Amino acid sequence: MAEYFAGIPTVVYEGPESDNPLAFKHYDAEAVVAGKTMKDHLRFAASYWHCMKGAGADPFGVGTREMPWLEAGDAMTAARQTMDAMFEFIGKIGVPYWCFHDRDIAPELDDLGASNKALDEIVDQAESLQQATGVKLLWGTACLFIHPRFMAGAGTSPSADVFAHGAAQVKKAMEVTHRLGGEGYVFWGGREGYDTLLNTDLRRETENMARLLRLAVDYKKEIGFTGQFYIEPKPKEPTTHQYDFDAQSCHAFLLQHGLEKDFKLNIEANHATLAGHSFHHDLEYAAINGLLGSIDANRGDLLIGWDTDQFPTNLYDTAMAMLTLLRAGGFTTGGLNFDAKVRRQSTEPVDLVYAHIGGMDAFARGLKIAAAIIADGKIDGLVKERYVGWENAIGKKIESGQATMAELEAHALKTNVMRAPVGRQELLENLLNEYL
Amino acid sequence: MAEYFAGIPTVVYEGPESDNPLAFKHYDAEAVVAGKTMKDHLRFAASYWHCMKGAGADPFGVGTREMPWLEAGDAMTAARQTMDAMFEFIGKIGVPYWCFHDRDIAPELDDLGASNKALDEIVDQAESLQQATGVKLLWGTACLFIHPRFMAGAGTSPSADVFAHGAAQVKKAMEVTHRLGGEGYVFWGGREGYDTLLNTDLRRETENMARLLRLAVDYKKEIGFTGQFYIEPKPKEPTTHQYDFDAQSCHAFLLQHGLEKDFKLNIEANHATLAGHSFHHDLEYAAINGLLGSIDANRGDLLIGWDTDQFPTNLYDTAMAMLTLLRAGGFTTGGLNFDAKVRRQSTEPVDLVYAHIGGMDAFARGLKIAAAIIADGKIDGLVKERYVGWENAIGKKIESGQATMAELEAHALKTNVMRAPVGRQELLENLLNEYL
Amino acid sequence: MAEYFAGIPTVVYEGPESDNPLAFKHYDAEAVVAGKTMKDHLRFAASYWHCMKGAGADPFGVGTREMPWLEAGDAMTAARQTMDAMFEFIGKIGVPYWCFHDRDIAPELDDLGASNKALDEIVDQAESLQQATGVKLLWGTACLFIHPRFMAGAGTSPSADVFAHGAAQVKKAMEVTHRLGGEGYVFWGGREGYDTLLNTDLRRETENMARLLRLAVDYKKEIGFTGQFYIEPKPKEPTTHQYDFDAQSCHAFLLQHGLEKDFKLNIEANHATLAGHSFHHDLEYAAINGLLGSIDANRGDLLIGWDTDQFPTNLYDTAMAMLTLLRAGGFTTGGLNFDAKVRRQSTEPVDLVYAHIGGMDAFARGLKIAAAIIADGKIDGLVKERYVGWENAIGKKIESGQATMAELEAHALKTNVMRAPVGRQELLENLLNEYL
Amino acid sequence: MAEYFAGIPTVVYEGPESDNPLAFKHYDAEAVVAGKTMKDHLRFAASYWHCMKGAGADPFGVGTREMPWLEAGDAMTAARQTMDAMFEFIGKIGVPYWCFHDRDIAPELDDLGASNKALDEIVDQAESLQQATGVKLLWGTACLFIHPRFMAGAGTSPSADVFAHGAAQVKKAMEVTHRLGGEGYVFWGGREGYDTLLNTDLRRETENMARLLRLAVDYKKEIGFTGQFYIEPKPKEPTTHQYDFDAQSCHAFLLQHGLEKDFKLNIEANHATLAGHSFHHDLEYAAINGLLGSIDANRGDLLIGWDTDQFPTNLYDTAMAMLTLLRAGGFTTGGLNFDAKVRRQSTEPVDLVYAHIGGMDAFARGLKIAAAIIADGKIDGLVKERYVGWENAIGKKIESGQATMAELEAHALKTNVMRAPVGRQELLENLLNEYL
Repeated sequence: MAEYFAGIPTVVYEGPESDNPLAFKHYDAEAVVAGKTMKDHLRFAASYWHCMKGAGADPFGVGTREMPWLEAGDAMTAARQTMDAMFEFIGKIGVPYWCFHDRDIAPELDDLGASNKALDEIVDQAESLQQATGVKLLWGTACLFIHPRFMAGAGTSPSADVFAHGAAQVKKAMEVTHRLGGEGYVFWGGREGYDTLLNTDLRRETENMARLLRLAVDYKKEIGFTGQFYIEPKPKEPTTHQYDFDAQSCHAFLLQHGLEKDFKLNIEANHATLAGHSFHHDLEYAAINGLLGSIDANRGDLLIGWDTDQFPTNLYDTAMAMLTLLRAGGFTTGGLNFDAKVRRQSTEPVDLVYAHIGGMDAFARGLKIAAAIIADGKIDGLVKERYVGWENAIGKKIESGQATMAELEAHALKTNVMRAPVGRQELLENLLNEYL
Repeated sequence: MAEYFAGIPTVVYEGPESDNPLAFKHYDAEAVVAGKTMKDHLRFAASYWHCMKGAGADPFGVGTREMPWLEAGDAMTAARQTMDAMFEFIGKIGVPYWCFHDRDIAPELDDLGASNKALDEIVDQAESLQQATGVKLLWGTACLFIHPRFMAGAGTSPSADVFAHGAAQVKKAMEVTHRLGGEGYVFWGGREGYDTLLNTDLRRETENMARLLRLAVDYKKEIGFTGQFYIEPKPKEPTTHQYDFDAQSCHAFLLQHGLEKDFKLNIEANHATLAGHSFHHDLEYAAINGLLGSIDANRGDLLIGWDTDQFPTNLYDTAMAMLTLLRAGGFTTGGLNFDAKVRRQSTEPVDLVYAHIGGMDAFARGLKIAAAIIADGKIDGLVKERYVGWENAIGKKIESGQATMAELEAHALKTNVMRAPVGRQELLENLLNEYL
Repeated sequence: MAEYFAGIPTVVYEGPESDNPLAFKHYDAEAVVAGKTMKDHLRFAASYWHCMKGAGADPFGVGTREMPWLEAGDAMTAARQTMDAMFEFIGKIGVPYWCFHDRDIAPELDDLGASNKALDEIVDQAESLQQATGVKLLWGTACLFIHPRFMAGAGTSPSADVFAHGAAQVKKAMEVTHRLGGEGYVFWGGREGYDTLLNTDLRRETENMARLLRLAVDYKKEIGFTGQFYIEPKPKEPTTHQYDFDAQSCHAFLLQHGLEKDFKLNIEANHATLAGHSFHHDLEYAAINGLLGSIDANRGDLLIGWDTDQFPTNLYDTAMAMLTLLRAGGFTTGGLNFDAKVRRQSTEPVDLVYAHIGGMDAFARGLKIAAAIIADGKIDGLVKERYVGWENAIGKKIESGQATMAELEAHALKTNVMRAPVGRQELLENLLNEYL
Repeated sequence: MAEYFAGIPTVVYEGPESDNPLAFKHYDAEAVVAGKTMKDHLRFAASYWHCMKGAGADPFGVGTREMPWLEAGDAMTAARQTMDAMFEFIGKIGVPYWCFHDRDIAPELDDLGASNKALDEIVDQAESLQQATGVKLLWGTACLFIHPRFMAGAGTSPSADVFAHGAAQVKKAMEVTHRLGGEGYVFWGGREGYDTLLNTDLRRETENMARLLRLAVDYKKEIGFTGQFYIEPKPKEPTTHQYDFDAQSCHAFLLQHGLEKDFKLNIEANHATLAGHSFHHDLEYAAINGLLGSIDANRGDLLIGWDTDQFPTNLYDTAMAMLTLLRAGGFTTGGLNFDAKVRRQSTEPVDLVYAHIGGMDAFARGLKIAAAIIADGKIDGLVKERYVGWENAIGKKIESGQATMAELEAHALKTNVMRAPVGRQELLENLLNEYL
């Protein structure tokens, strides 16, 4: 077994008073909050790509991280070492799930047949490691954005051959996700969008995207895969306009193509904010429309215009996320996947451990805050009071669909209402701060 | 008749060589382009609120414009003067249409009954002026955002009484729009959104919004109004999140509530850019989904985060807008409404004239550019070439819905495609510049 | 004495366990933190304009707040009532300071002479109220942005007459600030900027701005006013480009015109973020350059592109602000002025009280967090470790200005350094969260 | 000689009527505009990094471009091939200048000594190619941002050893720039900034940056290099905050450290817009302060939050840039360097040619538009009229520094000015459109 994180202890809960930067201060896996263990509420996952493959390169510089598992003579040896390193790392931080793209775990080789074969080999290894450790697969996916063939998309490619290649990768990635017992499968349309409308047939591209998803739905039934399908919204980057712009855009797409029963959303914090929404907004929109599936837990910098994928440590964000989640009944198939990367100057393996501890503690605090808000009921009480007018006769008539325009006019002529209910935003914000 | 624009001649076409700043250089109303007169293609409208009522106030200062029509002892006298001024102004610039909100043209009085009565009086005057001048109404609407009662929305208000009041205003505004022969009716949800999720019942608010729209659809049939209904997307301002965020969000809402047959979109340039899209994008999205109804023609400043509502003078924008419009078959009920205001330092009545000349000339040039692009076919040819791969066997099979995942995999294993078609964005941008 | 806040108790400290929304939970005025009372550290001020004059109007709606002090037959009676209301309000929340613009406290009348006379009358009243209550003036200023004459700026106006009028207002505002014992005087260039470069003489405008400031510096000496002068950076709004863009831009302006000894900065949170910086950044830049004077304490919404002026409740922001402030030695003449307004739906007088409680508690917590961070030393320790390399021989030589290029090259050829020190951002962020 | 662009003709001027996408339609090198040839006005340069080394990789995908010059067994062979390809390409498009970073043209080898030796070899080759072709070096620079040692900056590194290494690279890069007759030398602080203030000593870092620049100024004199030094502003990316944020920030830095005589600015369009300014703004600011040195000619997408480095084709931008430049007297040492890259889907060598043709034609049109605006005088006339009030007595007194506050007050009491001059923005925008 690998020893890439030698010298780093298995992280355990020591409580808020602990001075140990390598201990959890708030995440106590088996502690019960709001009726379930933290572990069952939060369903944390580590992402293979950021943990094991992202070296810290950016558009202005090469990788910086120490990643001994990638140093090997040939691609398959490196791939095997990396899978070992991943499970070693997961063991250190104690998350119950992992996530991957096909080309993260096994190399892209000369042709699709060879790549598929390589993938099978590594999946054998992953299967063994899952059995040995009890770690499970939250979701798998296909990487349809790195290779030059996908430079103009996969499902939305101007080339039918590329579409076919993408479909073939999806097919295979679904198969191996199924084999590994994955609880879901994500479609992130990494290059599904356009760089300029001048060269784009918008209708054809979006209709073809729907065709790819329908093929996947059919194939899912064919192989008996029962995991949940997710679409992951993102507004821009790498393209100028990504088709899956935000939660509501994805909703439009699903409804338009009759796919709304087959997909939920995988909401990513940084993607929501790049779309001009709060993370909380996209979660809430998804929740009220039955689309809240899974979460890519990270954090953007709202003064920065690209996907920074920072680890989530903002307690306001984690509290609001958990509030929406608890009210929606919690995760079923989904979880909190750390789609987050250490900063380029965080070069040592221990930085990866610090990062996950911070994210896990921040969501543990968010969970406790959300549970307290719900238990306390003060905020809910103020909201209920604000809408109390809907309990009167005209309100009930409107909401039951019985009112007519003429009746509403008659009511308005009579009541001549002059003010709306007070909003109390400052009081609500003060109350929120008291839970932190 | 009023003489608020005395000394300003009726603006006529003098051609590009003219030195007269009060002449059209490009907009030649009866000139035929792409099979129709410019007037019929562009269907320009002047907006009552910006032309006649917007004094130039902003959050840091009071109004600055010279607006003699507003100076009168009582509200109804001012309202009558203002309507006269509007038609005098329209006569100067020669647009065939106008647009209004109920509370623009007649004052908000002590109660709804009195306000309705005042509205009827002014509508009588407007009807006479329409008949006398031949100017027509592009669309009407109700102002559900200025009065404090609407501070938390109308259709999405936490108060059922406010909802009823809003519905009553919509009813009356539909009636007077119908009476004036309006070709459409716009729903801009001026306050339909939220300031904070902490005090908001998102599901209830959006469902109530749908209820209001359904009531309007029913009432439209009841009174025999055959004009087109439009929703106008806007992402934020005045609220933190407006529910009608962008074209695709509105599409989701319409599909979800079964309203997609009853509404089209009124796309505003500055609203699209505030949502993170190009104006062209939102038009194109609307067009391919059968939702392109009408346009609020203005321009934002992309470095500025609020709705600047500048007059549209950017030729790239007007050309792309007209390209999408021509390809979609042109306007039916809709038109180009100048939802734009002169800058706060443009204080004289003549500035309003300059502004409209600039906007009309810019769209006339956009129309000619778009027509030339289509006639020439070079850009279309490059796009066609980019997608040529879809004409092969596998492409046809995919697009006809005949292909299976297994077949696609077999194709991919065999073809092992390595590259996608070249994008040629720079060449396309160079070509575009040659049409300007 | 007025009774506009009847029924609202004087707010007192009840501690974090209190359930009373009208009590401080964290701000304990006389409690000592880091060697001084909270009151002396924080030096809170209430702003006249937002508290007393801002009715909640925005570009899409009229005012909504209940403000009985503004309801009076004539302008001077209203002004006197408003001043009473202001001191009544200050008494309720217990801030030691207030701030004003000349035209907030007394009306703009027919000519400058009349306006000056009105101002003198109200300043008499304010002087009495200050003496009676012990409340002091943090700073005064002149409003050079609301009136149409200032639509193109005051110091940067294209009109010399407007410049003169602005200068006259500054002169008078300095005089009354001096009379009221103001500890400072702020220059916020409300309209000093441009809407379009097409009509702007950039050099002339910025040089004239410097002339106005020099006149003020001279006049300050002439009248013996010893308060601190501040410039307040803001990047845009109401103009497209405000000349005092951010802290560093103001620094350039001051250095270029030899004014750097005479001015410090009044940093506003929401203005910093509109400029693309964190609040912390602009404070830190000001601090290390000896320019940190005073703070306009508020909060923006980073997803919103205009100046929302929300009350400051984000604990990360208040903690970082207080950290920079404590390290810089704390305020001397400056303070924390709540340049913040209640939301448009917070319509009752009690909302103004909630808002200030929230802001004061948030800064009290920020102060305690910052003091703990400094006392603990962990974060400082990590920073010191990161720069430890500067303590070696070559580091000392460079920082003392003794090294030459040739020596540095010789050193580099020999050491061939391959890595920079690790950044530890995640660990630092985790540590920070433990202080919240 | 290389033949990497075989089949592509040398691009020549064919005029606007030409249908040839590989011809200039507007750039006629020897044509005289505003007293000089286009070639002498525009001083175009090709950038080595984008033309020859940028393969199209982005954070979500590997390179896509066909770049045969990079395919070679060893690094030095590839470097030599690449230099040949660069001069072959320059010959095709006929720009008179090129620009480079040290590590673009020669590889980073095992240690600084070896890298320097490799650099010398390639510079020999470049010198021969310059002599053979007559192509000149606009500027050189050192790459202090790609290598992991520079991950926290060079001049602002937390490591003195890294500072020394950076200084050594600057020294060498200045030497080879001098040897190649470079007309300038650029400092772009690629990593000079911070990712988080939590780990940053802002004062030390910025002071050390000044030390590095002073060392460079001294060394410049020592070796007799007479080229111009430039700082290149950029606000963010790759760091969260880059110290050289914008033109005015750089001005502050230069003034503070007494470096304002030794540096001008290299303004990049996309960097200006990322800072929240128009390209025109940063040029104009630089021009009026004597800092306008050179231009990195590209274009951003204002809806996108990162540095897209697109080729400049927007005629509004090129016209405004040339207007400022002509008024400032034109370039002396600087020029228009295409710091722009073909889109990731523009994969063929011919796309690089299209891209440069588009950029050169766009600036040629910008030049002609700017010259026409100046010759015509209409816009200048309106601006002059706007400021005409400064020609009166009080205006002259103020601008000559003779006025006192008391005099200005007396003037204001007497004149009681009520309005500022009209702004005429719409008329100016209409006029501008007529030059396009």
